[in-house]
Amino acid sequence: MSTKNLSLIFTKIPEAFPVPGEHLTVKDVGFDLSQPAPPNGLVLETLYVSFDPYLRGLLRDPKIPSYMPPFPLNGPVVAASLSKVLKSNDPAFREGDIVQDRLPVQQYNVWQPSESSPAKPRKIDPSAGPEDIRHYLGALGMPGLTAYSSLYEIGKPKKGETIVVTSAAGAVGQLVGQLAKHEGLKVLGSVGSDDKLEFITKELGFDGGWNYKKEKSTKDAINRLTDGKGIDIFYDNVGGEQLEGAFDTLNLFGRIVECGQISQYNLPPDQRYPIRNTFQTVAKRITMTGFMVGDANMGPKHFLEHQKNVGTWLKDGSFKAKIHEWQGMENAADAFVGMLKGENFGKAVLKVKV
Amino acid sequence: MSTKNLSLIFTKIPEAFPVPGEHLTVKDVGFDLSQPAPPNGLVLETLYVSFDPYLRGLLRDPKIPSYMPPFPLNGPVVAASLSKVLKSNDPAFREGDIVQDRLPVQQYNVWQPSESSPAKPRKIDPSAGPEDIRHYLGALGMPGLTAYSSLYEIGKPKKGETIVVTSAAGAVGQLVGQLAKHEGLKVLGSVGSDDKLEFITKELGFDGGWNYKKEKSTKDAINRLTDGKGIDIFYDNVGGEQLEGAFDTLNLFGRIVECGQISQYNLPPDQRYPIRNTFQTVAKRITMTGFMVGDANMGPKHFLEHQKNVGTWLKDGSFKAKIHEWQGMENAADAFVGMLKGENFGKAVLKVKV
Repeated sequence: MSTKNLSLIFTKIPEAFPVPGEHLTVKDVGFDLSQPAPPNGLVLETLYVSFDPYLRGLLRDPKIPSYMPPFPLNGPVVAASLSKVLKSNDPAFREGDIVQDRLPVQQYNVWQPSESSPAKPRKIDPSAGPEDIRHYLGALGMPGLTAYSSLYEIGKPKKGETIVVTSAAGAVGQLVGQLAKHEGLKVLGSVGSDDKLEFITKELGFDGGWNYKKEKSTKDAINRLTDGKGIDIFYDNVGGEQLEGAFDTLNLFGRIVECGQISQYNLPPDQRYPIRNTFQTVAKRITMTGFMVGDANMGPKHFLEHQKNVGTWLKDGSFKAKIHEWQGMENAADAFVGMLKGENFGKAVLKVKV
Repeated sequence: MSTKNLSLIFTKIPEAFPVPGEHLTVKDVGFDLSQPAPPNGLVLETLYVSFDPYLRGLLRDPKIPSYMPPFPLNGPVVAASLSKVLKSNDPAFREGDIVQDRLPVQQYNVWQPSESSPAKPRKIDPSAGPEDIRHYLGALGMPGLTAYSSLYEIGKPKKGETIVVTSAAGAVGQLVGQLAKHEGLKVLGSVGSDDKLEFITKELGFDGGWNYKKEKSTKDAINRLTDGKGIDIFYDNVGGEQLEGAFDTLNLFGRIVECGQISQYNLPPDQRYPIRNTFQTVAKRITMTGFMVGDANMGPKHFLEHQKNVGTWLKDGSFKAKIHEWQGMENAADAFVGMLKGENFGKAVLKVKV
């Protein structure tokens, strides 16, 4: 007996922005809801899925090498999800438990430990943190841990310094900015709309910011907002022209935290933004460092502290984390592409069980 | 009574390569050889002058801010020099001593301590190191200390890794390559002529290299020389296309030592090389770090070790340091520009007292 099970399938390798229905297609892959949980495994119903920029890199030709394998063509997109346990064959989990794991983006999944992926899903205890469990995909999930670990490890924030956070209303940017305020920095943010600008300055407590769509250049914006004094940390989620502006405005011994370059991922190589001022690195002794949250000195090192601090601050209201929710698996491809285009205002989440 | 004293004068701000006789002009500024040494000071006759790429940045419009002040227009170029003491009014120096200091590039100088520049010239003891005192402008001078400190502090070489050194036959590159061999790395070098390629592979012991003027791209050259295995450290003296090739071929956790970008210094901003692949920083966790030899963790930290080790290795012949000598103050402007164009084969030195 097959139940409908809508799944987000990778159907064609995109050259630029993926197109819903062409490169990403929602299909019914069916599910047998009468099946028991497998040995040491779970039957799961998906509640929410997290859409994050890094997923774009996995929609690629397998001939292009990189450090995460791409999704197989005609297989499902796999993303961080919150699911409800329907059936359990592992005493650590009970029916009704909420778990987080990277799983195929579809309504139902079977989970089972394997040699290549033996780690159990993470059980969420909603009583330990904020009420809204969606935060476990955002501020308390991978994006939050990304923000937390890299700001401290690479950014090395010092009281009195100035930081620029790009994509400042996004899942990572929101948290970086609030953490930097907490550490006593002057915090500026770049965003893609006036609404987002109002949000980061009025609600998140940023000291200033700009809508990059209305500026002549990042360099001009930073010079105006710092009275020409420049910045000490550039937290990069965007790349391209904004990164170029950073090289021009960073002060001596400035740090670039290279978290992502969303502006470049959907461009063919010859259309990527040409940066002509990396020579600033020498005279100004800039350090630019890339990382991934799974690196030993990142997520694994900071996880417990991140959970405790950010969980507490979200619960007591001193930190905020805005979430942008799309609804329904039938809209999964549109939501994915909308996230890549920055149409989300806050952490991008798809509510699967509507 | 005035003696002829040819001096290299900064006569016009260059837009691109300086032109001898236009932007840099040798003029007789005269010198009174009968004057006594000033209080606590010295009268000096210049033997050798060091020409290094960083000097190009000091031939600029004072309205362009940077972290070393530019040379005043119509004043002398100031560079590291070896001089002979003609007269001394400081008991620490005797007539005939050889000293090293940054001084106007001219045949005779008066040196005197001042509030802004109280440090005495460094007295060279030729019996302590190699016979050829010119090494105190190269492998045992600022370029050598640059190579030594940055390779260890930023490059963090590990046995078995692969390093690419650009401008590999230059003052810094020669030493970086030999130090990296000493540490057990596979060492590849990029150079601008077949003679230099033969020199680094046959005489300096590099494992391989390429003449960048004969290659389609740096990426191709590195892929060929590493069998596609990539590199771990990129020691950059060149910038531009070579730096772009590094982003493409560096391995996970690769390091870029950003020592200089000689290919970019003589270009107007809109003609600088457009780098389109800095996004590689993220996935590959690359760190790119700029520095100056005067930074606390660089020269000052490594000076004694550098002098001891490199002095010993030059003396016993296990290290080599090729020097390119121009002769005569009348050729100073040509030598300076020749150095910027890479016409030197080895450390660029001008012999002033011929």
